[in-house]
Amino acid sequence: MSGMLLTGIGHLTTNLGEPIERGAVSIRDGHIAFAGAEADAPEQGPSDRLDCEGRAVIPGFVDAHTHLVFAGERSKEFESRLAGEPYTGGGILSTVESTRTSSTEELYDLASGRVRRMIANGTTTVEIKSGYGLDLDTELRLLEVATRLGETHPVTVKTTFLGAHTVSTEYRDDRDGYVELVVEEMLPRAVGLADYCDVFVEDGVFSVDQAERIFAAAASLGLPARVHADQLSRSGGAGLAARIGAASADHLDHVTEEDADALAAAGVSAVLVPGASFSLRSPQAPGPMLWEAGCTVALATDCNPGTSYVEAMGFVISLAVVQMGLTVDQAIWAATRGGALSLGLEDRGALAEGMQADLVVLDAPSPAHIPYRPATNHIWTVIQDGKQSYRRD
Amino acid sequence: MSGMLLTGIGHLTTNLGEPIERGAVSIRDGHIAFAGAEADAPEQGPSDRLDCEGRAVIPGFVDAHTHLVFAGERSKEFESRLAGEPYTGGGILSTVESTRTSSTEELYDLASGRVRRMIANGTTTVEIKSGYGLDLDTELRLLEVATRLGETHPVTVKTTFLGAHTVSTEYRDDRDGYVELVVEEMLPRAVGLADYCDVFVEDGVFSVDQAERIFAAAASLGLPARVHADQLSRSGGAGLAARIGAASADHLDHVTEEDADALAAAGVSAVLVPGASFSLRSPQAPGPMLWEAGCTVALATDCNPGTSYVEAMGFVISLAVVQMGLTVDQAIWAATRGGALSLGLEDRGALAEGMQADLVVLDAPSPAHIPYRPATNHIWTVIQDGKQSYRRD
Repeated sequence: MSGMLLTGIGHLTTNLGEPIERGAVSIRDGHIAFAGAEADAPEQGPSDRLDCEGRAVIPGFVDAHTHLVFAGERSKEFESRLAGEPYTGGGILSTVESTRTSSTEELYDLASGRVRRMIANGTTTVEIKSGYGLDLDTELRLLEVATRLGETHPVTVKTTFLGAHTVSTEYRDDRDGYVELVVEEMLPRAVGLADYCDVFVEDGVFSVDQAERIFAAAASLGLPARVHADQLSRSGGAGLAARIGAASADHLDHVTEEDADALAAAGVSAVLVPGASFSLRSPQAPGPMLWEAGCTVALATDCNPGTSYVEAMGFVISLAVVQMGLTVDQAIWAATRGGALSLGLEDRGALAEGMQADLVVLDAPSPAHIPYRPATNHIWTVIQDGKQSYRRD
Repeated sequence: MSGMLLTGIGHLTTNLGEPIERGAVSIRDGHIAFAGAEADAPEQGPSDRLDCEGRAVIPGFVDAHTHLVFAGERSKEFESRLAGEPYTGGGILSTVESTRTSSTEELYDLASGRVRRMIANGTTTVEIKSGYGLDLDTELRLLEVATRLGETHPVTVKTTFLGAHTVSTEYRDDRDGYVELVVEEMLPRAVGLADYCDVFVEDGVFSVDQAERIFAAAASLGLPARVHADQLSRSGGAGLAARIGAASADHLDHVTEEDADALAAAGVSAVLVPGASFSLRSPQAPGPMLWEAGCTVALATDCNPGTSYVEAMGFVISLAVVQMGLTVDQAIWAATRGGALSLGLEDRGALAEGMQADLVVLDAPSPAHIPYRPATNHIWTVIQDGKQSYRRD
């Protein structure tokens, strides 16, 4: 029976009640056996001890929206966009080109580097979408790589099929034909490899009607929906997500209070990705309004080579606090428990008896130091499934 | 005779002409012996070689505005400010309290950690201000610590006396008396320890008249001026800096085109600190306008515990490009050559024969990756005065 006892925690965020000032966490067999005041910790704890010397402990980050399996980079597109070129999602096709021509091993190696940097930045669970293949073979290879990353790295991976990321070059003049391909050929083969199905709903990408068709097919195959919704305009993605009872509606830069109420009523999580709004110089999604409306708010990196080449949840939290206006406590909750709930993972994102032992020791006295010192990686130690997955030298 | 030859540079920014695609740099005795196309490199280079394998090389960062010697932290003030409390500069006094009561060794150890993290983020020259003492003894201790940091770390330190950071608690009701103290008691003792004199010119802090008196006394002692100017309002600091021919005017969030023209005509460098505007949620200084006006634009961290607890110049460059609107090339120039010129260091911030060998190898194919991947520390190797000062494991 393996275990570990963390003592001397200066600030313990359990996500269940107020932070605890002098905390301890006991871990047994990959699960939390105790999380609370050090004075209340059971005397017979595990013999493997870690003195946190006043550092803060929070649940591990759950990054609920990434596109991290791809080849190539788009720094030149980034520069031209800042010089005035508008973003319409078109650059995706250049990543599709470099991804299709890369071997599965190359894609795995590139993605593995990103996952390892994410772990070093405190991530213990990550959602990974396909979407840079746009043909059956490559989409399946991307989902296989994503699945394999979870088997070979100390991180839980949830996979999402995003064949409808954009219309492939081959189907440029037959957009409905591409939807047909996604529904008839890709989706059935994604079953067993993907946990979710996603569609980029946006003017000029996929319409609400096209998305609805894809999500209906996915639902019939047992794949719940995650929706790229209302990122560049209020194009109806959030409304659709609420109507079909999606697991999550993501981005949401342009949602209204009416949309927020509909999402909250339908139990759809709001996954916000401030790194994309930062890089695109667009206003942040209305995080505080979504929170007030009663939505389960989650934060994610949106790690992708076009609009948010971000691997660190700490940076996302800084933007959520400084630019979006969430409080530190809300942002930490959204980056941990919110992400977990959006992925249906009730057993993590909080520190209490029985939860999976995924947590981060910050090299700081409180989580407020993440946005207070926004250019610093505050991660000291990461524990995933009860085992140390990262420790700063 | 010591030396090093860097080969395989995929993108060489010399700050003297266009970037070079296949570059090499040769170093001898702490100075650049050659920087240019690999094909043109002298055949008899140093035997110690570093293959950059396509990575980008840029001059080392010159961080021209920091307050990095202090004790304590102000994350709670940061949180209340984001919750709506206005910033007026008042929090400085809480840092003064914790700094005064710390021993010189404690201050040195805390500052040493910050300097080491700066070096790991590519900084090779750093300006350090006093200003958290506000009494003779502590101000001198801060300048001594700053000087010692340059002797004990692989970094060039320039020091600035900022006794007029704010009025000390003791002189709360006798602000002119405090100016008198700065001029009569502190300034003469700062000579020999400080390279520059700075004043925080702002409504409610020091007036233009008070600052002018301090700068006149400093000039008579041989200390050129750096000016905290027009950060929170257009309070006249930039105009003063131009009038007295200061070395630099810093912050400049509220300057007009008229101010910019005056600074350019007077040869005053414009030191911009986007980390402070980011943390304060205030609009960025008009970097492109200052550049167009012909100012020498520099970028700096403003590392301080109140408004910009930032140690990484990479984060500053990301903000300068994404939020302020400088191009990548302008931002890199400002973070290297611009900072050096603002500190009168003609021999660095550019890579050419005879320059001090201060440079950074990025773990990226071009400097555009700094803002393109804004949450990543891109530093692979730092060379300062011809010697490796940091190398990623």
